[in-house]
Amino acid sequence: MAPWAERLAGVRGVLLDISGVLYDSGAGGGTAIAGSVEAVARLKGSRLKVRFCTNESQKSRAELVGQLRRLGFDISEREVTAPAPAACQILKERGLRPYLLIHDGVRSEFDQIDTSNPNCVVIADAGESFSYQNMNNAFQVLMELENPVLISLGKGRYYKETSGLMLDVGPYMKALEYACGIKAEVVGKPSPEFFKSALQAIGVEAHQVVLSVY
Amino acid sequence: MAPWAERLAGVRGVLLDISGVLYDSGAGGGTAIAGSVEAVARLKGSRLKVRFCTNESQKSRAELVGQLRRLGFDISEREVTAPAPAACQILKERGLRPYLLIHDGVRSEFDQIDTSNPNCVVIADAGESFSYQNMNNAFQVLMELENPVLISLGKGRYYKETSGLMLDVGPYMKALEYACGIKAEVVGKPSPEFFKSALQAIGVEAHQVVLSVY
Repeated sequence: MAPWAERLAGVRGVLLDISGVLYDSGAGGGTAIAGSVEAVARLKGSRLKVRFCTNESQKSRAELVGQLRRLGFDISEREVTAPAPAACQILKERGLRPYLLIHDGVRSEFDQIDTSNPNCVVIADAGESFSYQNMNNAFQVLMELENPVLISLGKGRYYKETSGLMLDVGPYMKALEYACGIKAEVVGKPSPEFFKSALQAIGVEAHQVVLSVY
Repeated sequence: MAPWAERLAGVRGVLLDISGVLYDSGAGGGTAIAGSVEAVARLKGSRLKVRFCTNESQKSRAELVGQLRRLGFDISEREVTAPAPAACQILKERGLRPYLLIHDGVRSEFDQIDTSNPNCVVIADAGESFSYQNMNNAFQVLMELENPVLISLGKGRYYKETSGLMLDVGPYMKALEYACGIKAEVVGKPSPEFFKSALQAIGVEAHQVVLSVY
């Protein structure tokens, strides 16, 4: 067997990133990256288990999947591991009530979360909602807590839109970390827990998976 | 001589910070900190040389001094060391044309600076002007440069307004540093060059000065 074939012999699953791997986001729903629609179709027609694993935090899974389906991708909501639902689980487990510094597009993922009298901050790729006023609100919430908790959905530096490079959540996470002298908890790539939950969803072990991430 | 008197015996000058030491900024011009108007008057009536040394970067020196005079302070523009004029000198010396991520109140300090076709970014306490759009503009300018230069007027984490704590320039400097993988050059406190230029202005050596900073 050729070395690469030997290496692939034990592979049972594939984790696919979405933004930058399947498509470039942007105005009008973004554009599929050449060959990716076909690649997903072939993978899903093979013996391999496929899981979509994204740090997309501007949109709900429903919105994201709708957009991808319109671009021709064979994908459903229950095949997607995304940081917002993972964060909701943490919030519930720890009794945390967040101030949400997030994009309106992802707000529906937090519908079941109590946001009254906040005792933590959740920050995501908020785009235009990263106003000074909103950042200052998040900062003031953190400064009033005895043990400030900042949960960041990913820590990406920037991403590519069809119109150019755009600041992601990471720089704003760093801004709040510096302002408050704290360290954020990152939910999403590259956190090992996040990848583990994606693997669990398809019942595949870490050594049996191939990763395609941006 | 008592130990403190012995220590003060060689003192020839005083560097006074402004925001948080002389006054708290805020709506309607802010408020003088109790006793500070009198303290400045007494210092200026003594044998000591007095220099005001501020990281204020939302206002021009003219505006700042006007505000302080209205609060009763004996202060003139030529007694103030501030980061914007220091930055202008650096820009001229190095042929840098900045994209200015600054507050409109301080823009007049950069009147003589060429800002066409930017080859660096100057960031200051921009307040509400720290919009996502403006931050992304600065980010894109930096990412297009072979040797990105980011000059930050101070690196304060936050300051106190009469209405509460406000994010200062430092967190936004950190955001751009992280996004671009670069290190900013800080002009203003706590840079040694900045303190040196304040001392030079009153002809006093570092070991002969008392500092009152926030």
